[in-house]
Amino acid sequence: MFRILSRIPSVCFEATRVLSLSASAAIKVTPPDLSQRFSKKRRHKRSDLLRIMATPEIEKQLEPLRLAVKEYGDKIRALKEQGASKNEIAPLVVELKARKKRLEDRELELAPIDEGFQRERLEDLLKRRFFYDQSFAIYGGVTGLYDFGPMGCSMKKNMLDLWRRHFVLEDEMLEVECSALTPEPVLKASGHVERFADWMVKDVEKGDCHRADHLIKDFCEKQLQDAKTSEETRAGLTDVLAKLEGFDNKDMWAVIQKYNIKSPTTGNDLSEPVAFNMMFATQIGPTGDMKAFLRPETAQGIFLNFKRLLEFNQGKLPFAAAQIGSGFRNEISPRQGLIRVREFTMCEIEHFVDPAHKDYPKFEEVKDVELMLLSACNQMDGKGAEKMAVGAAVSAGIIDNETLGYFMARTHLYLIRVGIDPQKLRFRQHLANEMAHYAKDCWDAECLTSYGWIECVGNADRSCFDLEQHTKATKVKLVAEKKLPEPKMVSVVEAMPNKAAIGKAYKADAKKIIAALEELTTAQVEELDKIVTSGGTYSLEVEGFEKPLEFTSSLVSVKRYEKKVHVEEVVPSVIEPSFGIGRIMYSVLEHSFRMRDGDEKRTFLALKPTVAPINCALLPISSNARLEPIVARVKRELTKNGISCKLDDSSGSIGRRYARTDEIGIPFGITVDFESEAEPQTVTLRHSESMKQIRLEISELADLVQKLSNETMTWADAQKKYPAFETKESE
Amino acid sequence: MFRILSRIPSVCFEATRVLSLSASAAIKVTPPDLSQRFSKKRRHKRSDLLRIMATPEIEKQLEPLRLAVKEYGDKIRALKEQGASKNEIAPLVVELKARKKRLEDRELELAPIDEGFQRERLEDLLKRRFFYDQSFAIYGGVTGLYDFGPMGCSMKKNMLDLWRRHFVLEDEMLEVECSALTPEPVLKASGHVERFADWMVKDVEKGDCHRADHLIKDFCEKQLQDAKTSEETRAGLTDVLAKLEGFDNKDMWAVIQKYNIKSPTTGNDLSEPVAFNMMFATQIGPTGDMKAFLRPETAQGIFLNFKRLLEFNQGKLPFAAAQIGSGFRNEISPRQGLIRVREFTMCEIEHFVDPAHKDYPKFEEVKDVELMLLSACNQMDGKGAEKMAVGAAVSAGIIDNETLGYFMARTHLYLIRVGIDPQKLRFRQHLANEMAHYAKDCWDAECLTSYGWIECVGNADRSCFDLEQHTKATKVKLVAEKKLPEPKMVSVVEAMPNKAAIGKAYKADAKKIIAALEELTTAQVEELDKIVTSGGTYSLEVEGFEKPLEFTSSLVSVKRYEKKVHVEEVVPSVIEPSFGIGRIMYSVLEHSFRMRDGDEKRTFLALKPTVAPINCALLPISSNARLEPIVARVKRELTKNGISCKLDDSSGSIGRRYARTDEIGIPFGITVDFESEAEPQTVTLRHSESMKQIRLEISELADLVQKLSNETMTWADAQKKYPAFETKESE
Repeated sequence: MFRILSRIPSVCFEATRVLSLSASAAIKVTPPDLSQRFSKKRRHKRSDLLRIMATPEIEKQLEPLRLAVKEYGDKIRALKEQGASKNEIAPLVVELKARKKRLEDRELELAPIDEGFQRERLEDLLKRRFFYDQSFAIYGGVTGLYDFGPMGCSMKKNMLDLWRRHFVLEDEMLEVECSALTPEPVLKASGHVERFADWMVKDVEKGDCHRADHLIKDFCEKQLQDAKTSEETRAGLTDVLAKLEGFDNKDMWAVIQKYNIKSPTTGNDLSEPVAFNMMFATQIGPTGDMKAFLRPETAQGIFLNFKRLLEFNQGKLPFAAAQIGSGFRNEISPRQGLIRVREFTMCEIEHFVDPAHKDYPKFEEVKDVELMLLSACNQMDGKGAEKMAVGAAVSAGIIDNETLGYFMARTHLYLIRVGIDPQKLRFRQHLANEMAHYAKDCWDAECLTSYGWIECVGNADRSCFDLEQHTKATKVKLVAEKKLPEPKMVSVVEAMPNKAAIGKAYKADAKKIIAALEELTTAQVEELDKIVTSGGTYSLEVEGFEKPLEFTSSLVSVKRYEKKVHVEEVVPSVIEPSFGIGRIMYSVLEHSFRMRDGDEKRTFLALKPTVAPINCALLPISSNARLEPIVARVKRELTKNGISCKLDDSSGSIGRRYARTDEIGIPFGITVDFESEAEPQTVTLRHSESMKQIRLEISELADLVQKLSNETMTWADAQKKYPAFETKESE
Repeated sequence: MFRILSRIPSVCFEATRVLSLSASAAIKVTPPDLSQRFSKKRRHKRSDLLRIMATPEIEKQLEPLRLAVKEYGDKIRALKEQGASKNEIAPLVVELKARKKRLEDRELELAPIDEGFQRERLEDLLKRRFFYDQSFAIYGGVTGLYDFGPMGCSMKKNMLDLWRRHFVLEDEMLEVECSALTPEPVLKASGHVERFADWMVKDVEKGDCHRADHLIKDFCEKQLQDAKTSEETRAGLTDVLAKLEGFDNKDMWAVIQKYNIKSPTTGNDLSEPVAFNMMFATQIGPTGDMKAFLRPETAQGIFLNFKRLLEFNQGKLPFAAAQIGSGFRNEISPRQGLIRVREFTMCEIEHFVDPAHKDYPKFEEVKDVELMLLSACNQMDGKGAEKMAVGAAVSAGIIDNETLGYFMARTHLYLIRVGIDPQKLRFRQHLANEMAHYAKDCWDAECLTSYGWIECVGNADRSCFDLEQHTKATKVKLVAEKKLPEPKMVSVVEAMPNKAAIGKAYKADAKKIIAALEELTTAQVEELDKIVTSGGTYSLEVEGFEKPLEFTSSLVSVKRYEKKVHVEEVVPSVIEPSFGIGRIMYSVLEHSFRMRDGDEKRTFLALKPTVAPINCALLPISSNARLEPIVARVKRELTKNGISCKLDDSSGSIGRRYARTDEIGIPFGITVDFESEAEPQTVTLRHSESMKQIRLEISELADLVQKLSNETMTWADAQKKYPAFETKESE
């Protein structure tokens, strides 16, 4: 999963993340990473399998596994109805998750084989044509850090531009750009300092570190492949694998001891799992006393600017703020390419809304958008995802509210627009136990890749948690004012410090003490009233004093009165769609990777014109100098219209040159040939996905390519408008 | 200055940066920060003065100061001709800089007063309307860190988009995006670990830190304002201020001792100045043994990808790579708003070129662009900047080569395009002593602001330094191959390890030793040949061995032969334009800040339509419901065409509402009034800078606003095409 949500304290982290020491915390499903589960040879075959079409035969085989899940789903529901405690339910949840995992693994195993995809070929292409590659490679490289080359950089930029148009512009969001360096108190308040961690074990002699769950997984898989492993051990290991995602540090330590697991690199003993905080620490300024971190997400910057943004919006709710920027997470041992990295681009939206009114004015526009929903309920029942209109899902209470539903639909539309295969996209709801206590509803948009189902976007209703945490930490009220339908009378109770007496008793400190008394909550004032009116002494801790101070009726009294109010303060709820751009980009690349029929060697990327790194290729059919002025004319026309174009006038055959431009996903190709010379000059335009060509005048070219590139016109339309051009692409 | 160039080892850092311990290193001119030199009251007046028009009367007063500079300029030139050493020249350079500073201070003092600019009013506007503001303000704020609000974020995005179009697209650069986290060895090779530092003093009791030069400056200025300070002390302090930029740690320590300077906050003693490295340190991975920094500039990422980029460019020189991204510098005590910050956006270009061919094919296109050039020669002569066509400057040898000249001209055009006032822009050449030994030529584009002349873009010919440093550190050859006009024969001399004998002698280490022998340079092989053929023993340090190993003729021999080569290896030179976007943005804001004639209270930003945060404002003249459908129609038309628009249907007078949109630099305003109802429906369009209005049909509106916004049409053209609309903007 993409740990966008992992700042939610205690239960929204990945299972093996350190959250709280209660077992109930540890119940987040991570999509099965089958690729790691098999030998290198089998892995590639396995990665080919991942398709979601199921036949009746397959369903028959899955039936008992589905029932097994449902059995535990029902048990848990029954216990909950009886009001059982979290601790009573926790072990059943662990078993539920294990059964769900067995079901999902089997589903993927049984899915029909798709021969079209070989991950290592895609990876070779991305490296060779410099979409992206490991950072600092000439210095040996650093895992989890990637540099984007010209192709990747351009594709990413196009995805971000589209994101900005689709979300920020169309929904008039307030875009901000906040600092990545973040002082410690901010991340203490958000919960990251305490809880944003993974369990790690250390080689007791060498000090090498391993992520505890990865280490156990690798160990179990290796043992299972060993023919000498006994049936009994085999069963135990399989059970560990199924339950691993639910394990906390104690569970994992028990496994390490039971199977006597050693360091895989040295064979040395391992330490007990310890929490490793995944934020990169640094210091701001020269004295070393301002501890800071690189932000693990961009959201906190938005929360801290809430007051400025509310004011910018003339004090009115609802409004949404958005941010595009880098996040940093110090993974213990990242693998899986762009899926799990240490530095990445996120796009986050925080929509602030009156908790009493989560309807959305533009919901009507998206209500018929159909989503694949894997609801919590279906998960408990061992069922798969179901297609449903978002309007129906909100009406049925499956999605909590219109605002959340609106953003899920918009997320779906964006993902399709950038090139995610709708067949490989689902929204998975968090189980009640996965969500933080304050969260209302969470749905992850997951894309199916050769790594399994990958969380690419989190959509969460986070209630008012974040603003309240920062209010607590700073005493700055992060609230909006809401006009009441009609004014109302409210009772007010306030502490009234006897300023003269306090001044006399505390001199220079008096101001601070008076402020502390004035800041008491209603409940505290009521308690104070009770105590001092009965002649007692009220104790209060005041910053800067070692011991609590004592107050009697001579120092403080209580005032009660009625007040007419026209507005009330509201702590807004926050609906948060959070996008991991690298993960979406990788999924798009996998979903766009194709092989030419009958020519395995010729692979290409069928990228959408709006995200393709380059708009078109320009290829003179020969290097004859006669064609040069025509090529120059075409190039000039395109540049003038802001169309990017890759000129390839090298000497290879036209077919080979097209193969090279197809490979990097250039959607259209222009050929200048000897027919081009006749007035009015013409060229051919080729659609790389279908390899079909049309012929048109150069004067019309720029306009057509522009329309095709911004998708205001389709290739089919172009084919209707212009005559086809037939040719054979010789190799 | 913008320390983009400061990675150039030893002499291109700011004077007070720690570079090398030789005095000659310390000679970088920082623009005088007059604002800090006067009492608060005077400071604002002072900041008003900064204009560069000089009258004959002023020139007369400046004449003696100019001659004083020239006197030392001539002395230094004479010494250089005699071949004097750096140490002999250094003290004269310090005096030259002091005289230059006196001249420049006086120039600014004498410049005619411009009443139009008050910095605190601009700052108030930028904060109030959330262009940008201090980060983490509710937690007390962190100096040197800023958050950009919706207005600043949009303006910055527009500046970056324009940068990409102007440079990356128009010159077909290869854009990359590299990691900000950077392992230590990379920054060791680049020179940053050793030299990217400022001098710092510490309060010996409390440990508070101060930047040494800032502390001395503040002390001197305070003493000079004190009427009790004696004339003698006054002269000494003035001299310190003039020379401060040239001081190293020892000079500054001498001043601190002489004047008995104490901590300004506590009055405690201060430590000797120590070097403080300005990079933010962190660690990658869990073990703590991979030390890393946040990159202080984006350029290193490009150098490390040189081979991939060269391959992407089919092995051909020249080519340019570009990167837009964050840089991080841990300033000791940042002040001056966006001018000196700890986290900032840079745009850097590294143009790789054959050192033998620095001509530029497109130079012809820019040769007539006129630049204000403050050449090194003029600086030595005490003269000011001169206007000159870039073609003439290259021909005259003032600018070293066409490529550098091309980028300077393109930089100039970009800066004008985003809104820098051409009257407040100059290119200042580094003096020979300011440049690193390997650099050929450096010109800073400086913008005049209320902070003085601010370096906004560095344009440097960095020769082959960076690639060579990384080659040394990694042993990966960062070179291009150049086809020779005709093949040539070259003599080759190689060490021939006796593999069998070495294998026998060193067993498992043999491979490493053989590799070390094969890596010897030609000079080393010649030496080895001389020694072993005469029966001697050649010593060589090999990694992993404590002592040098010894080789006799039984272990290694030398082979000589002739080889026919068709290509030669070239280490490309690098021309680097490096942009500090925050500084440019701040300068644009200062240069665009205006006051309405006769209405001091009404300020506005005359931003260029291409960088303005919002394209247009939309204001119904009254809240009458009759106008609503027309407003909705206009909004729809604009959104459909991708035009951003701020609707203000609040109840204020139209004049007051326009004042609010003018204030944030919205260049055009649309008014819907009761005349709009008549078919065909019309609106008025208002140009905020001139407050003139025209009337046109709604059907033509989107097209016109789009053309005005992307500057394919001017307001004057629009006025010619559409009838004027006269109205009085009531307050």
